[in-house]
Amino acid sequence: TIRYLFKQIFKASLQLQVDDHKKALLVSRKRQSENTVIQLGEVAIGAGSSSIIAGPCSVESYEQVYEVAKALKEQGVKLLRGGAFKPRTSPYDFQGLGEEGLKILREVADEFGLKVISEIVNPSDIEMAVRYVDVIQIGARNMQNFELLKAAGSVNTPVLLKRGLSATMEEFMFAAEYILSRGNTQVMLCERGIRTYEKWTRNTLDISAVPILKNESHLPVFVDVTHATGRRDILLPCAKAALAAGADGVMLEVHPNPAVALSDARQQIDIPSFVQFMEELRASQLFREEK
Amino acid sequence: TIRYLFKQIFKASLQLQVDDHKKALLVSRKRQSENTVIQLGEVAIGAGSSSIIAGPCSVESYEQVYEVAKALKEQGVKLLRGGAFKPRTSPYDFQGLGEEGLKILREVADEFGLKVISEIVNPSDIEMAVRYVDVIQIGARNMQNFELLKAAGSVNTPVLLKRGLSATMEEFMFAAEYILSRGNTQVMLCERGIRTYEKWTRNTLDISAVPILKNESHLPVFVDVTHATGRRDILLPCAKAALAAGADGVMLEVHPNPAVALSDARQQIDIPSFVQFMEELRASQLFREEK
Amino acid sequence: TIRYLFKQIFKASLQLQVDDHKKALLVSRKRQSENTVIQLGEVAIGAGSSSIIAGPCSVESYEQVYEVAKALKEQGVKLLRGGAFKPRTSPYDFQGLGEEGLKILREVADEFGLKVISEIVNPSDIEMAVRYVDVIQIGARNMQNFELLKAAGSVNTPVLLKRGLSATMEEFMFAAEYILSRGNTQVMLCERGIRTYEKWTRNTLDISAVPILKNESHLPVFVDVTHATGRRDILLPCAKAALAAGADGVMLEVHPNPAVALSDARQQIDIPSFVQFMEELRASQLFREEK
Amino acid sequence: TIRYLFKQIFKASLQLQVDDHKKALLVSRKRQSENTVIQLGEVAIGAGSSSIIAGPCSVESYEQVYEVAKALKEQGVKLLRGGAFKPRTSPYDFQGLGEEGLKILREVADEFGLKVISEIVNPSDIEMAVRYVDVIQIGARNMQNFELLKAAGSVNTPVLLKRGLSATMEEFMFAAEYILSRGNTQVMLCERGIRTYEKWTRNTLDISAVPILKNESHLPVFVDVTHATGRRDILLPCAKAALAAGADGVMLEVHPNPAVALSDARQQIDIPSFVQFMEELRASQLFREEK
Repeated sequence: TIRYLFKQIFKASLQLQVDDHKKALLVSRKRQSENTVIQLGEVAIGAGSSSIIAGPCSVESYEQVYEVAKALKEQGVKLLRGGAFKPRTSPYDFQGLGEEGLKILREVADEFGLKVISEIVNPSDIEMAVRYVDVIQIGARNMQNFELLKAAGSVNTPVLLKRGLSATMEEFMFAAEYILSRGNTQVMLCERGIRTYEKWTRNTLDISAVPILKNESHLPVFVDVTHATGRRDILLPCAKAALAAGADGVMLEVHPNPAVALSDARQQIDIPSFVQFMEELRASQLFREEK
Repeated sequence: TIRYLFKQIFKASLQLQVDDHKKALLVSRKRQSENTVIQLGEVAIGAGSSSIIAGPCSVESYEQVYEVAKALKEQGVKLLRGGAFKPRTSPYDFQGLGEEGLKILREVADEFGLKVISEIVNPSDIEMAVRYVDVIQIGARNMQNFELLKAAGSVNTPVLLKRGLSATMEEFMFAAEYILSRGNTQVMLCERGIRTYEKWTRNTLDISAVPILKNESHLPVFVDVTHATGRRDILLPCAKAALAAGADGVMLEVHPNPAVALSDARQQIDIPSFVQFMEELRASQLFREEK
Repeated sequence: TIRYLFKQIFKASLQLQVDDHKKALLVSRKRQSENTVIQLGEVAIGAGSSSIIAGPCSVESYEQVYEVAKALKEQGVKLLRGGAFKPRTSPYDFQGLGEEGLKILREVADEFGLKVISEIVNPSDIEMAVRYVDVIQIGARNMQNFELLKAAGSVNTPVLLKRGLSATMEEFMFAAEYILSRGNTQVMLCERGIRTYEKWTRNTLDISAVPILKNESHLPVFVDVTHATGRRDILLPCAKAALAAGADGVMLEVHPNPAVALSDARQQIDIPSFVQFMEELRASQLFREEK
Repeated sequence: TIRYLFKQIFKASLQLQVDDHKKALLVSRKRQSENTVIQLGEVAIGAGSSSIIAGPCSVESYEQVYEVAKALKEQGVKLLRGGAFKPRTSPYDFQGLGEEGLKILREVADEFGLKVISEIVNPSDIEMAVRYVDVIQIGARNMQNFELLKAAGSVNTPVLLKRGLSATMEEFMFAAEYILSRGNTQVMLCERGIRTYEKWTRNTLDISAVPILKNESHLPVFVDVTHATGRRDILLPCAKAALAAGADGVMLEVHPNPAVALSDARQQIDIPSFVQFMEELRASQLFREEK
């Protein structure tokens, strides 16, 4: 057992290095104690107010995006999301409008003074995308697509990184580190539910990830309540829980006519429901308005 | 495919019966639209105010329970928990003081005017237990110990039923149905985290279970933030999230000296931390005081 | 960091104790290097040959059990299972025939010279049960029903302990330790699939549990292919995999007419399928016949 | 309820379309009843014999690969794997030698008459890679990197597609469909363990995936026993289980000196262990030699 003790001493020395390494992570609050604030027009993400990102799952047409953007504007929501490149389980499902979709988003957003967030799926599209979008989204299925992370790390456009389907929080932070380590420090983390055995929700919203990520990292944290739950009937309580737990913002999917949506038809909410959602969220006093 | 359609019609008829059956569940809100309210002294659980259940993981001594109960009293908390029969992974771990522990709880609770909640693990102990406790707790490991559920259903004492380690919400509701179907309608449901791959928390708090259970059932819903997280540093944000999501109350473990606790030493909070927890929770305006 | 090293030395000393403790577990191969062999009539479980346990999910009638037992006899299978006390998700589902079911099993088994395995769910039923059964089964939902484990540990009848729905292997071994520590050393472990996100199987057969449990423990290891898969079409390959991985035996459900079974109608196989299953399993040369 | 029946009839019609769609999947055995056979030199994968793929986790040097390849040759193993592009959780871990690594693999493989399998992680590298490798591997983290799948689908080189960390079998088959739908029909599926709560193994080998994938699809099915278990001590029983369950082959990691490996140091086996593994696997009679 003397040998055992020496082995432990050796291990302890190793562990010290690991701790130093962890301390050294660029995403870590040990490295940077103050919050990273990402400025998108008038919106300062991570500075204390609550941000909402909303929009259709997929960009389908100018009219569709226009209608949603108008509702956002009226509700004081400044961040418009919409999918132009869609990672779909089946190759036969609608794969998105591509660059054409990004153009539509840009055009509509400019009309209403909104900022655009859209998912990019191919490293070679990053350069093209930054001409249209204000925030590059990296989706759950690509959280460990390290080539894509590296490409997103080499531009100056802010990145919204979604947690992988079954990523640990540690893996999530390392994925963000890929981006920061390439020079792009404007990263937002987005919890979107993890895969479990439970079947009454599409995924399981890991609410404890919010305070843990806020403690461990200085990056802003969002919760995508649409994908986390897959159920319209609990979007509002889950959004409230997210804000109560310390999230910097909430993301949700809104479509003028969900029943005919080309993707996620079952979980998007329509515009009247969105208006009601915003009114009730604001009424809850959990919502911290931008000053 | 005509045959197929007939098969579907047949299936539909079957499904109708299932729906009726589901409607017929005693736990279902379809069966009883108004909330079940459980009166424990001055505390009305399920009537709109926020209830706190607190106390040590295990009852260890009169002094230990006294010290915690005093703190509860000072914070206006009326519900005292403490384990006398401890279901432990290893047979060599402390198994609880048994009936002696229940006596201590009762004695201390009476001194401070509190109500007692304690876990029972053997169907044959239920009758003995109701002489001491105000609420029978059925723990996660026993959620599908149907003999225990039946025994708890045959008394008039309220029951706090915890969700199993990997129980679906459907199984959870059926477990409660075992109790109600035997005649005991005073059941509270308690989400306490589910088992997932994530390692930074002891379990994963399934926050979406709160609004879903509130929608599907008329029974009060609690969240045990101690077992759901296993981490003291995020108890407060998770408790806030629970209340924001619609929970009727929060449960947590408090010990005068967690470092020497006979069980769950790492996750219980000490009394000063409990005081701070209560103050911050009340300050958040999420806490709805008993009128 | 000197302080850190001392802390590690302290930890190492603690770890040594834990290791000793682990070594001391009665279920551990460190404690007993040779296999535990359980003799059931002519069948020696754990001695190298492959054992089959088969029978209906629930005992429904004398005729039903008779028909299955006859098929077992013809196939040289000596171990008859059948549920008399059924732990069912819903209180409105068939709960089993109770003691009457055990009598039927005993009577039929004696007629064909078979041994009886049946699940007991209430600690207070153990004494009654040992008058009828040769092996007490403790089901997955009761793996951490420690009162039941203690009761099973206090008799001399062999016990088949099934792994919990989401039990770790460590918890599984500790559950067995509850039985051994009370004096009953005749315990068989039964892997029956764990709960995961995958939906094409009822559970996920954790095949790696077989060699790990065989390495870590001296107890015999079975695989319940019916519950692990919930699919008749893959019972045979999974049974082969179990034997190839080192299992001492395989358990499966057989019913004369699965379509009208009072439980598990979808996953039981009928008698012709059972005959074919046995013939193909024996033909595979993985099956080690009793000498 | 008449309305309900009509709704079901409508649903049934929809379901008919889904079934047709499923039938139409190129990966489905309903579409092609005979096995897809992939010819790699003398090795015919999917034609009934058992194939072994072995080699180091990462290509580190010519000497390292040479030493492993020599051992493969001596054991009659024809398929050499080695990672040149390494998807690593941390950006600070060894990321592989890149194209230089592919050159080493090709050179050594040619010397011993072996075929080369290596993972590609960037769609834009596929064209370069096919100059060096005989099989493109798509790793678990990239199973739903649809751009990479599309790129792999547009060349004629066979592809080994690994199941995602928490991919359902359905998603796995759809991922393969992405490749086939682009014209590349030479795809092998590789089960490599799924992510669960169990901690004694790195992942949980889903052995039932083997017979299900063989039933549902005509594509060859491999099992990567190294990543599925993360434990050297159970590689052999798991490999036997894979073959017993119907796998066309087994993949494992071999390194001349695992202790100093630049990745996966804990789970690779050394050359003497590999020799013993091969001898015992062949001795088991589960191994079906190439004729």
